[in-house]
Amino acid sequence: MRFEDLTSPEIGALDRDKTVLLLPIGSVEQHGNHMPLGTDTMLAEGLCLAAAEQLAPNILVLPSPWYGYSPHHMRFPGSITLRPDTLRALVADIVGSLVRHGFRRIVIVNGHGGNANLVGVMATSLGEDYYGKARIAGLTYFHLAAAEIAQLRKSEKGGTGHACEFETAMMQHLRPGLVRLDRAASIYPETGTPYLSTDLVEGSRVSTYLDFADLSPTGTFGDPSLASPEQGERFFAACTDVLVRFLEDFARWPVAGGSKI
Amino acid sequence: MRFEDLTSPEIGALDRDKTVLLLPIGSVEQHGNHMPLGTDTMLAEGLCLAAAEQLAPNILVLPSPWYGYSPHHMRFPGSITLRPDTLRALVADIVGSLVRHGFRRIVIVNGHGGNANLVGVMATSLGEDYYGKARIAGLTYFHLAAAEIAQLRKSEKGGTGHACEFETAMMQHLRPGLVRLDRAASIYPETGTPYLSTDLVEGSRVSTYLDFADLSPTGTFGDPSLASPEQGERFFAACTDVLVRFLEDFARWPVAGGSKI
Amino acid sequence: MRFEDLTSPEIGALDRDKTVLLLPIGSVEQHGNHMPLGTDTMLAEGLCLAAAEQLAPNILVLPSPWYGYSPHHMRFPGSITLRPDTLRALVADIVGSLVRHGFRRIVIVNGHGGNANLVGVMATSLGEDYYGKARIAGLTYFHLAAAEIAQLRKSEKGGTGHACEFETAMMQHLRPGLVRLDRAASIYPETGTPYLSTDLVEGSRVSTYLDFADLSPTGTFGDPSLASPEQGERFFAACTDVLVRFLEDFARWPVAGGSKI
Amino acid sequence: MRFEDLTSPEIGALDRDKTVLLLPIGSVEQHGNHMPLGTDTMLAEGLCLAAAEQLAPNILVLPSPWYGYSPHHMRFPGSITLRPDTLRALVADIVGSLVRHGFRRIVIVNGHGGNANLVGVMATSLGEDYYGKARIAGLTYFHLAAAEIAQLRKSEKGGTGHACEFETAMMQHLRPGLVRLDRAASIYPETGTPYLSTDLVEGSRVSTYLDFADLSPTGTFGDPSLASPEQGERFFAACTDVLVRFLEDFARWPVAGGSKI
Amino acid sequence: MRFEDLTSPEIGALDRDKTVLLLPIGSVEQHGNHMPLGTDTMLAEGLCLAAAEQLAPNILVLPSPWYGYSPHHMRFPGSITLRPDTLRALVADIVGSLVRHGFRRIVIVNGHGGNANLVGVMATSLGEDYYGKARIAGLTYFHLAAAEIAQLRKSEKGGTGHACEFETAMMQHLRPGLVRLDRAASIYPETGTPYLSTDLVEGSRVSTYLDFADLSPTGTFGDPSLASPEQGERFFAACTDVLVRFLEDFARWPVAGGSKI
Amino acid sequence: MRFEDLTSPEIGALDRDKTVLLLPIGSVEQHGNHMPLGTDTMLAEGLCLAAAEQLAPNILVLPSPWYGYSPHHMRFPGSITLRPDTLRALVADIVGSLVRHGFRRIVIVNGHGGNANLVGVMATSLGEDYYGKARIAGLTYFHLAAAEIAQLRKSEKGGTGHACEFETAMMQHLRPGLVRLDRAASIYPETGTPYLSTDLVEGSRVSTYLDFADLSPTGTFGDPSLASPEQGERFFAACTDVLVRFLEDFARWPVAGGSKI
Repeated sequence: MRFEDLTSPEIGALDRDKTVLLLPIGSVEQHGNHMPLGTDTMLAEGLCLAAAEQLAPNILVLPSPWYGYSPHHMRFPGSITLRPDTLRALVADIVGSLVRHGFRRIVIVNGHGGNANLVGVMATSLGEDYYGKARIAGLTYFHLAAAEIAQLRKSEKGGTGHACEFETAMMQHLRPGLVRLDRAASIYPETGTPYLSTDLVEGSRVSTYLDFADLSPTGTFGDPSLASPEQGERFFAACTDVLVRFLEDFARWPVAGGSKI
Repeated sequence: MRFEDLTSPEIGALDRDKTVLLLPIGSVEQHGNHMPLGTDTMLAEGLCLAAAEQLAPNILVLPSPWYGYSPHHMRFPGSITLRPDTLRALVADIVGSLVRHGFRRIVIVNGHGGNANLVGVMATSLGEDYYGKARIAGLTYFHLAAAEIAQLRKSEKGGTGHACEFETAMMQHLRPGLVRLDRAASIYPETGTPYLSTDLVEGSRVSTYLDFADLSPTGTFGDPSLASPEQGERFFAACTDVLVRFLEDFARWPVAGGSKI
Repeated sequence: MRFEDLTSPEIGALDRDKTVLLLPIGSVEQHGNHMPLGTDTMLAEGLCLAAAEQLAPNILVLPSPWYGYSPHHMRFPGSITLRPDTLRALVADIVGSLVRHGFRRIVIVNGHGGNANLVGVMATSLGEDYYGKARIAGLTYFHLAAAEIAQLRKSEKGGTGHACEFETAMMQHLRPGLVRLDRAASIYPETGTPYLSTDLVEGSRVSTYLDFADLSPTGTFGDPSLASPEQGERFFAACTDVLVRFLEDFARWPVAGGSKI
Repeated sequence: MRFEDLTSPEIGALDRDKTVLLLPIGSVEQHGNHMPLGTDTMLAEGLCLAAAEQLAPNILVLPSPWYGYSPHHMRFPGSITLRPDTLRALVADIVGSLVRHGFRRIVIVNGHGGNANLVGVMATSLGEDYYGKARIAGLTYFHLAAAEIAQLRKSEKGGTGHACEFETAMMQHLRPGLVRLDRAASIYPETGTPYLSTDLVEGSRVSTYLDFADLSPTGTFGDPSLASPEQGERFFAACTDVLVRFLEDFARWPVAGGSKI
Repeated sequence: MRFEDLTSPEIGALDRDKTVLLLPIGSVEQHGNHMPLGTDTMLAEGLCLAAAEQLAPNILVLPSPWYGYSPHHMRFPGSITLRPDTLRALVADIVGSLVRHGFRRIVIVNGHGGNANLVGVMATSLGEDYYGKARIAGLTYFHLAAAEIAQLRKSEKGGTGHACEFETAMMQHLRPGLVRLDRAASIYPETGTPYLSTDLVEGSRVSTYLDFADLSPTGTFGDPSLASPEQGERFFAACTDVLVRFLEDFARWPVAGGSKI
Repeated sequence: MRFEDLTSPEIGALDRDKTVLLLPIGSVEQHGNHMPLGTDTMLAEGLCLAAAEQLAPNILVLPSPWYGYSPHHMRFPGSITLRPDTLRALVADIVGSLVRHGFRRIVIVNGHGGNANLVGVMATSLGEDYYGKARIAGLTYFHLAAAEIAQLRKSEKGGTGHACEFETAMMQHLRPGLVRLDRAASIYPETGTPYLSTDLVEGSRVSTYLDFADLSPTGTFGDPSLASPEQGERFFAACTDVLVRFLEDFARWPVAGGSKI
């Protein structure tokens, strides 16, 4: 299920029309006092693997390049950011290599809010580059599953932002040893304007640069105190399910130019 | 109200803290059989001017660089597209020049769906570049006013996509001489998947490249037959109102680093 | 006559061999105490439209991207500059899109001295890119009409530099409401060397960076006191006439590689 | 020991002078019929972790961005290549972010021959960028340990090239479940010239592009038949030991400009 | 007199205020049947050295990077072209290094028509980059000496274009062994339009791409049959004299920002 | 033998299969108190010409673009550095032009240690770009001849680093008038670590940025006092011989894709 674990002839034997390749991207950046820097990438990858398990055999998960676009976290130690052009070049080279090998269905599965607009740009521009040869899609998993997350959450608005009820619970489920819940601090950040939301299940209507250190002393946006492993299991199952259903649909999208879509 | 109409000393005399500068961006691209190529830029600029009129005197509208990111329209004659990097460099240079002159409040007002993700990237990355010196916001006006448009529209889902009930009516109000309603053709495009919407008041949950020529023979997405000048007046007033209210709010956002937001 | 006012099918119906497309470029930059920032672009566009009117129907004027290369004006408020690479990418993308639609005759009509060398580079390199497919020309209108302007001017050498007798009169003719002649200050700048001219009808024999704020307190180079609407009308008619004659000639230039030229 | 597993405050508490950060880089590319695509990155990361274990606590291993420069493998399915500029930008952004957080000792640990010259360029140019602030080193582990590998190997010249006696044994030790020795094919490639070596413990005296598909039908260079888990254990221990000794030395190199080195 | 012949301490001892550095640039491109590919660079360098001899000791000639922008000659064997961005980066790096060493007066002396607009762009943009620190000038020597060449020439219009009366005579004087006058072919190319001149002492009023192979079977523009060593000596002396006079003037130009010019 | 001295038709007449083109690259940078800035380029070019003389007629030497990658010398006056990207673009454009003219065997002959890794990258990436059309090789001549130099040298380890026994003697042979041996100072630099060598015939096992001013007050690494013209003659003959033997071998390497190598 992991692309990097296969041999070249095993890759060569895959059905080019049916195989869906998932590229998880995330970030290495602060996740409050209680969660690891790699949270976003771990979750994106974890969901991809869980979805791939359900959809085997015509699906593979590529190794994640780990790093993302995180300038708004740089005032917190350990945060690493790529420039937007670097991330675009990186994904473009990976996708381009896959298309050279004849793959036709590639999904960028993003787990970091800061990457979301770039994922939109990349899916569109790579889709144009390989129009008629490959179908490229991009998604941010918690936007895809926003409705399901909203139903499951316990916190009020502002509780699921960053290193929050949602992400903490997800990690308690996926990588429990890396969560130090005793160190968690809850904060419902105030932007002072209805136009900017800090909640990840609810987009902002306007884009601006939000430096996390201006809104939260620990970098947390939301309420990790409401997280639990059981809640994490529910969130994870819901997100996996949403992703699986999308991938089943995506596997039927036409690739060739001239077709619908 | 138009930046380009003022003299240099008049610009020099403006209050740097209060003045809000609007940069309208749009596109030059096909708008069906019945609407002009410049529709998106004309509407973005028209709304900026209407909002500026209500908010005078601490607001100015910059001249629009006209062109946008439109690869998905290139199979229709007259469509022009910038590469994403060109649009980003262009806006970065304009904004950077304004910041050199001490301006601190700049809004990119976008009128073209294809630019939307790039506007998000630009607002964020320019906001980081000038953190503590200037506040940069970016918005796509019909996303900002999605609720209001949804209330006013007559068409069902799919009716307000591109050169549609909404854009046609807006132009009938703003530039009636440029609309040839007799040539309009209505089409409700089928993407064949619930994950991709062609309706501009409703975002897609997943990004992919949608070539307009694959979904509509004329390039129209939606139902211009439901448009009318009166409907256009209502749409235009609602969009202006939404933009004005946002700008009033934006004028109070803190600029300096360390402040909330 | 304006490209952006037409529909896509109207563009599609144009004769690719005969149609000449004009792309006016200029700048947004200080023009002394008495003239608007947008002067250069307004004049380039105004001349294109005047020429197109005489040459209709096989000619169209593209919307101007407004901004140009103006580092030497940045010490005056309101001046905006693109980096040279941004301007080149911008024009390259516009021209490239037009060539994709089959257009074969494109002229960059420049109204800003600071762009002149870049226009030369762009016309050459784009001409190479599309060799055999399209003929690209670039010109700075007051260089093209230098002899005619020299005959009409009243000022001595140094009187027609920037926001000067010439440009002021041109704007008094084209956009009289935007000229505040009462605020105009005349200055004949001293470069202290015969190798550098500040007069726009006479090129310098050597290139160097001339920061306008070092040579003129108001940014004006020349003598706006000699300007008048009548003089502007004569200048404008002469420039239009020169441009028209060139475009008539250009319409006969061979496009295909292997031909003369 | 894994950077991505720590929280931001844990990173913040590290001693900036003593902490050494290791960035493993490798590739995703064909490794013959019998080894996984991710071999090079797995080995580089495995060695970094083994060395870090011996040198704890003042050392951390960053997550590997996985992909490298592999154009010479692209004719084999599954190989992925970044362009040289992409790899340089990627490493530059990661290193630059670490320097912003005050880290002063960073080592790029490379496990892929195709990256070797780029690692040299990156170590030098990043070292210049951060001169006096941070000390950056770059190494290719099997070049660093060339003498030790040469002593342990059983094959003759040509036997340790790619997916060979050496790499196969290393993986039999580190990730035995991913090696299919039964599918391995040995080949001693003939370059036909003494100037080009295919053996990884012996550099070529001249650089040129060697497309692996021209020299080996399976992509293997060398003799995996001589590999064994025991041999892998010896190779791995030797490489770890060499890396540890280097890192102990590196921890004493001066960082500040003006010092020796 | 040659920069590259001096030792570092000798360069270190130079008076930063008085020393003028000349960077000759030219091209490697076809020069008809009878002249060497390196003609333009040889002539630019030869003139710099001749001028430096007259102006010693406060002047040095840098080694020429030889290659230029020559796409219009590529259909003739041996022509080499840099992309415009490469030439700009190359000159920018050289000039930037010199400014880091404190040099304040640098002149780009160009000997190739194809570089002329780029030289204008480079002089301006580098002048802006180092405003107040260094004065950068750029010139094309045969434009600087156009009047003097016009007086000395024997040919009619069209006779001094490329590998012509002028360049052939110059080389007969400077590098007689490299001219094969017996192979020379004269041609007065026809552009078919008054807007494009092929004569190097007379600029074109409009820029476009002129592929030399379309206008001349041998690549020669002009009349080498009128060249002679004596004529070359006169041309060379005149060009040297013009350059010397300019450099004497340039040595007095102010460098610091805020001064006139 | 010099490419730039030939006419275009002479280049056109060369046998594309047999002709080998040499591109010497080096640097303009400090070479101690006693040697000229241009040493590296002069030596690379001198060796190319000497080798070409022995291998005539199927070999030509291109003019050297002179400048290289020398950030580590910038604290010594007169040193000039290109950015890595500039050097790569420069060589790429030259090689690309030659391939357009059908040349199939090109060798980059480098004389500057700071360029060595970049030469490796360029030979590989250009080799990929022109795979099947041209064979590109890159070498650093004193690495190619390391064994021969080691045999001839009189100094101990550290004696042949930069402006050292080796380079001084080579210049005493090739350009005796440019060596001021009386000003030479010997220094055996101490890096304080066995991982970094300053000796040019012995590579370092690890890459890092070594600023020459930190290790040597004059910039010299090594022992020029052991140099002599006779020693230089021996070094030069040995290096030439090694280069000639390589070029004879290279002339037989296959060019077409699919062949061995």
